[in-house]
Order: sequence, then structure tokens, then C-alpha cells
Amino acid sequence: MFQRFKVRHSESVLWRILKFQSFLLIIPFLFYSFQQKPTDNESQTNNDSIILRKIYDEALLNGKSYEWLRHLCKNIGTRLTGSPQSFKAVDWAKQTMQSIKLDTVYLQELFAPHWERGEKESAKIIFPKGEKIVNIIALGGSIATAKDGITAEIVEVKSWDELKTIGEKIKGKIVFFNRPMNVTYLSTGRAYGEAVDQRGKGAAEAAKYGAVAAVVRSMTLRQDDKPHTGAMHYNDSIQKIPACAISTNDANWLSEQLKTEPNLKFSFKQNCRILPDIKTFNVIGEIRGTEFPNEIIAIGGHLDSWDAGEGAHDDGAGCMHSLEAIRILKSLNIRPKRTIRVVMFMNEENGLKGGEKYAEIAKKNNEKHIAAIESDGGGGLPLGFGMEANEESVAKLSQWKNLFLPYGIYELGKGWGGADIGPLRKQNTPLIGFITNNQRYFDYHHSANDVFENVNKRELELGCAANASLLYLISEYGF
Amino acid sequence: MFQRFKVRHSESVLWRILKFQSFLLIIPFLFYSFQQKPTDNESQTNNDSIILRKIYDEALLNGKSYEWLRHLCKNIGTRLTGSPQSFKAVDWAKQTMQSIKLDTVYLQELFAPHWERGEKESAKIIFPKGEKIVNIIALGGSIATAKDGITAEIVEVKSWDELKTIGEKIKGKIVFFNRPMNVTYLSTGRAYGEAVDQRGKGAAEAAKYGAVAAVVRSMTLRQDDKPHTGAMHYNDSIQKIPACAISTNDANWLSEQLKTEPNLKFSFKQNCRILPDIKTFNVIGEIRGTEFPNEIIAIGGHLDSWDAGEGAHDDGAGCMHSLEAIRILKSLNIRPKRTIRVVMFMNEENGLKGGEKYAEIAKKNNEKHIAAIESDGGGGLPLGFGMEANEESVAKLSQWKNLFLPYGIYELGKGWGGADIGPLRKQNTPLIGFITNNQRYFDYHHSANDVFENVNKRELELGCAANASLLYLISEYGF
Repeated sequence: MFQRFKVRHSESVLWRILKFQSFLLIIPFLFYSFQQKPTDNESQTNNDSIILRKIYDEALLNGKSYEWLRHLCKNIGTRLTGSPQSFKAVDWAKQTMQSIKLDTVYLQELFAPHWERGEKESAKIIFPKGEKIVNIIALGGSIATAKDGITAEIVEVKSWDELKTIGEKIKGKIVFFNRPMNVTYLSTGRAYGEAVDQRGKGAAEAAKYGAVAAVVRSMTLRQDDKPHTGAMHYNDSIQKIPACAISTNDANWLSEQLKTEPNLKFSFKQNCRILPDIKTFNVIGEIRGTEFPNEIIAIGGHLDSWDAGEGAHDDGAGCMHSLEAIRILKSLNIRPKRTIRVVMFMNEENGLKGGEKYAEIAKKNNEKHIAAIESDGGGGLPLGFGMEANEESVAKLSQWKNLFLPYGIYELGKGWGGADIGPLRKQNTPLIGFITNNQRYFDYHHSANDVFENVNKRELELGCAANASLLYLISEYGF
Repeated sequence: MFQRFKVRHSESVLWRILKFQSFLLIIPFLFYSFQQKPTDNESQTNNDSIILRKIYDEALLNGKSYEWLRHLCKNIGTRLTGSPQSFKAVDWAKQTMQSIKLDTVYLQELFAPHWERGEKESAKIIFPKGEKIVNIIALGGSIATAKDGITAEIVEVKSWDELKTIGEKIKGKIVFFNRPMNVTYLSTGRAYGEAVDQRGKGAAEAAKYGAVAAVVRSMTLRQDDKPHTGAMHYNDSIQKIPACAISTNDANWLSEQLKTEPNLKFSFKQNCRILPDIKTFNVIGEIRGTEFPNEIIAIGGHLDSWDAGEGAHDDGAGCMHSLEAIRILKSLNIRPKRTIRVVMFMNEENGLKGGEKYAEIAKKNNEKHIAAIESDGGGGLPLGFGMEANEESVAKLSQWKNLFLPYGIYELGKGWGGADIGPLRKQNTPLIGFITNNQRYFDYHHSANDVFENVNKRELELGCAANASLLYLISEYGF
């Protein structure tokens, strides 16, 4: 189109076009250089890479996490809030933080729900001509059945719509929530998230229609005989009815029987009880930053666990990831520029009072958290970190991808932080969730399968190293 | 600098600069568009993405691999070449391929080494005042001890240099090869590769100095009581001496004892034997390509296994990955453009005669293999595919990264193919190795730990889907 300009105007017009084009020429280079974003210089990256290698060597050669976890699982055991073991775990965590010579170690007092399972539950399916024993576990927070148990016809529902449709016919019966987790999701967490409403509010919803109890299919993708517990909540304005989980094998079996025997009865007994709130603690330890001590990076898992297994993956592993990460840095004489604080939260499973208290105190003390990291996805193969934060912070995290890739950490981007650190969201703290292989996680979660033997030593150690590496990078460069 | 031009020259000069700048302006866009490399059009990529989703759905909803593997492990069991079970496995594989209605199913005859373990081995450490029973397993290919066993002083060595230094002092003694796998390597395969020479040639090297037997530390990173077997080789010009593996726990214990009791004795008994080569088979099935039937994509694992466990991860899982991948494509009515051939190789563990025969016949028949895929890294979490091929083929593989990333497959690049497909290297076949989480693999490998229960259903199914997806893409686009 340049040819259309008349020659007599060419001088000034051409000059103008020239200037504009000169400007345009610069743009792609600016664009290109922004794409590269080389905020650290190359030698610094090399140095970081050397430090990450040292961190991994320390974790794999001299790691403490596996033996610590063995102690927590085998010598202390299951750690439901308020249980004697939960207090032993608090003592152990405090002592262990002191033994690795953190600058400060302290307990943070809080009050939390206190629920006890009581004696082992029992259940059976009653046919006109016989009965079959099935495996159940009371849901956390449920009331007991009558002393002799409860027996009633059982009605299967797979959706809230179905429950509504059946409506008043449920009166006097037990509702059997049997919508399975979706096996086709690659994220088992998503499958859990979409099914767990049955466990959380099933009893309350069923009670609206006069049901006398709720039985919920265990929240797992695995077919086995182990029932999985977990928190449930009542609606205070509606009658409380007892609720339990049934194993997936028994759930499938029961569902099959109901096709031909719709009037069979279900009978179960549990004598769990809700006690008054109890005083308990988060356990906190920190290394003070050398240059920016007021910039805090919190890292943690939850010390409490459900009482079916040993809380090995959920969340003994997360506690170890955090504690060992800080031990690794100390053992390598890495003095972080920013303050690193390990937090073992209490009461994640049935109240989240630990996480809430932590955020409350942080706000009260006007603390500046530049990041909070949580590991609560089990001790499996580490795959990445997912972040709830603004674009700039997420971009910063993503930039460390090449440092992490040699260690199989390839997911560094947007994601979910975690339950315990969630209450810090209101303070605009960037939240980071540690991502491990979640394909097996719900095989163990909240069940008797969640034992030490199901945690792999190397995978646990690699998780500790990944978290130590992230702590190092954030403490070095901030967010 | 433009201002320096004299006004009278401005017209032509400015025009020239303008033209040149106009050209320059195009460059970055060309550069940018080259960076994008959109070889397939967008709608095709969307279509592929939909097909991959269907493949994963089929694998996770209707997968057959887990129950097939259960049958192979529990109803057939361990499958060392020449064993009755190995022939049962051949029959089962052939029938199963026929049951899923492949176009052609046949056995490929070959002759392979035949070794039998005989009765269970026994071993003890003899102190001046007592003895301790330890867990050993004869190495594959080893000769027996004398009927009453062999008893001699034992000497620990951790390197070939150390063996050489000790030299003739070894005469009449048992050599204990105790160099552990390197825990700091992220790739456990690399750690295995650097330690397994002790198992492979330890006995032959020790015999050079007059040793009477060799005891080798198990090739695993795990500390436990299970010894791991595996192939060893003699040097025909040197005396053959019996060789066995000792568990890592016992290896550490023995090493400790030797520090204070250097003259303690080791005693073991094994009555394994080398039999004449035996006739056996690869099992092969194929779907003929609709457009390019002469272009063959082979995919396989090995049907034989060591006899300590059930050959679940090694390599029952690989057989399932291959067979189920082809079943998935059939069940989705995907007619591949190129011929897909599933191969269950015999004798990978102690001879590789299956892989050699396959390549020999492929050459003889002048077959054009455009790719050979092997899964022999266990049934763990799928992470990628590694390729031995020219840059162009590797680039093609890498280009599918975005299709695979939603399924956690992030490693698509250069790598190692596999043992069974290795002999095709001479025919310039692009070789592709399926990469799964290898952190646990050597916990199971060649030991009593390699049982069905240690394979996770979802991880196995995701592996099948990943392989089916790759088969689909290669059969669609070639290499």
C-alpha cells in the first residue's frame, strides 16, 4: 500500500512510517525477552541446581522421615483429636523439633471437637432366610445407635434427586447412599470431591424425610472389604440419626441383593459419642530468616488422623515432608533468608480448628506470610506443587520448573493449597499444595489400609527433598 | 541516525529503508509461527484429544488388564522359560488374543536356555559359638552346590579393584559382593545398571582367583528379608562356581559381623541345574492396518518371569499393557491405518532368545517395523515414553506432549527402548520404552515381593490407556 502515497508527500510521510516501523521492530524483541523472563542469572541457577542436588542427596542418604513415620505410626498410632495418642503425638512432635535444634519450638493452644468411636461397630444384612455380616465403620461425628443397634428396611439412593423423589417413603427406613466415586477422572481428588457430599450430609438429608439411619458407600475407588470413615455433619434443626460407612465390596453386594430382595433389612450397632470440645495444640517450630525474618514461609501437615488405620499417608507423611524438609536445610547449613516455620496442625479431620487457630493468631500478631505450603495428599511419588495465588506468584513458581524437572516434579502452576492453610486465604497468603501421585491415595484414606507399610521409603524421602527444595527457593527469592 | 541522511537523497533512501524494514517486520512472525509448529491442524488435534479421552474411559470403566493379570499371577503363577507354567502362559496368551478377535494369532517357535531351581535353597552364617540362618536364592543360571552344600570362609568385596587387590587370598573362600545400589540416583534403573555387574559376572570373576562360591547382595534399594534372583553368566574357560543372592538385611548384618569376626564361615546349599535348551514360543497377535498394512507397530512385554514371586510387575504388567492396549482400540472400533502387533516375548530373563528370534524372523520376512514399543518397567504410575530413534522421530513423539499431559504423561523424548525389542535396533526400528514410576520397582523385581497384590489396579489401567493412545497416534500418523 506504500505505493499509493504521492511522491511530493513522500518525505514527511515516509519519515513518519519509518519511525513507526522502527518502533514496531522493537516490539517482537521486547515480547521475546519477556517470554524468556530470565530473572535469575545463569550462575545463580547453576548454584540453585547444586543446592537442590545436595538436598536430594541428604534426603536419600541420611533421611529421617521414614523412621520418624514408623515411630508415629507404630509406637504412637492413630491420632484422632482428643485421643491419648494425639497428645503423645504432640509431645513427640515438639521433642523432635527441639532435637533438630530449631530456633523456636512451641505449642499453640486451641479447642476442638472431641468424638470417640467406642467399641467396634457391627452390622448385618437380614434376609427372610438368613443374614450376612458386613463391614462398617461409624462416620466421624455420628451419634450412636440404640444400645441394641438399629434394624430397618434399607433403601438405596444414588443421587439427591433420587432421595427427593422417594421422599416420605423413606420414613422409618435406613438410607443407603451408594453413588460411587467417578473412576474416569484422572484426579482421584476430584472424584472424591464429587462423591463425599453423601458422607458429609447424607444423614442430615435423609433425616429430613424421616429416615432412621444412613449407610454410606466408602469413599474409595478400590474394591475391598475395608470401610472408610470420615467427617459427617448434622443439621441442628433436624433429628440426628446415626451414620456409618460400608466397604465397597459390601456396598456392591448389598446393591445386588436389593435388586431381587427390595425389602431386606439392615442392622447395625455403634456406640460412638460426641464429647465436649477439648483443649489441644498445633505444634510449631521455626528457623529465623537471616535477612527478612518478618517474612514467614509456613509449611505443614496435620498431626491428627482418623482412627481406622495409623494415619500414615493421611497425614503422617505430610508431617514428615514438612519436618524433614526443615531438618535437611539445617543439616546442610543453609541459613534461610526468610523465616521458615513448620506447623503440625491439629484437628484437620473433624473440625479444622488447628488451621483456623493458626490463621487467627497470624492475623492477631500481624504476621506477614509470604507463602503457606501444605502436604496432605499422602506420601506417594512427588509430582508437583499447585498454587492458589495471583498470576505473578504462580509465574514465579513455574519459573523453577527446570530446577525441579530432573527430580520428576513437573506440575508447577495453579492448583489447590490445602485445608489447614485454607484459613490464611483471607489474609491473601499465597497457598501451595504439594502434589503426589494420587492414584492410590483413596485406597488408604481413612481406612485400616492407611498403615506405615503402605508408605514407600524412597517416595517419602523424595517428597521431603521436593519440599526442602521449594522452601530453599522461596526463602532465597521470596514471592 | 536517520537524521544524518541529506534531504535530497531522502526519497530513494527512505524508500529502500522502508522496504527493508517491512521485510524485517515479517521475520519475527515467521519465527513465531515456526516456534508453534502446528503440523496437524487444530481440529485434528481436538479429534485426537477426544479419542484419547475415550481410550482412557474404556480402560478405567471396562478394563480387563487387572483380572487378566490376576489370572496370570494366581492361576498360572511364576513362568520361568521351560517351566510347565510358562507353557500354560503361552496357551493362555494365545487364547486371550483369540478371544478379543485379533485378525491373526500365532506362536513363534524358538529354542531357549532351560534352568531349574530345584529345592528351596538354605544358608547360614557360622560363628565360633553358634550360627544364624540367612535368606538366599540361587542366581539364575548357577550350578548347584555339592549335595551337602558348601562351607567356607567368606570375604566381602565392594569393587572389582578390591577383588583384584585381595587376589589369591580368595582361594578356597566364598566371595561376598556387597556394593549397594546407589540410593541418590533418581533413576533406580541407573542404580541397578551400575550394580548388577556383581550379579552377572561376580561368580566368574571370583573363580579366576580360586573362590569356591559367590554370594551377591540383592539388587534392590529396599531393606528387607527377601533375596532377589536374576541372571548370572559363567566364563566357559574358568571353573564354574555356585552363586546365590542374599537379602539386603542379611547382607548388612553379615557385613557388620565381618568387622569383628573376619574369619566367620558361610554355608549354603542349592540344587539348581542347567538343562538342555528347550523349545518354547513367543505369542503374537495382530490387527491388520487399513491403509498401510505393511507398516508394523510392534508392542510387547515378556511372558516369562523369574520364579521367586509371580512375575506381576516383571513383566506380567507389561504383557497386560500391550494386550489391553490393543483390546481397547478394538472395543472402540478404531481400525488402525497401520498394522499393530502385540508380542509376548519368551525368555527375556535368562537368554533373550524370544527377542532375538522375533528380530530374526522380522528381518527374514523383510518386515517394515515403523516402531517397536516395550513395557518392562512394571505396572506403576505411567509417566512417559522414552525413544531410541533419530531426531525426527523423537520430535514427532514429543509433539504429542499436549495430548498426553492431561493424563500425567510428561516425559516424551529420548530414552531407552527395552531388552526384548533391542535386537530390532540393527534394523533401524525406532524403539520406544514405556516409562512408569520406577521408585518402587526394585522393591519387587525378581523377588517374592513381585506378586499381584503389589500392582495397583488404576495405575495398571492408566498404563494400558497410555499405550493404547500411543498405538493410536502412531498408527494414525506413522513415524
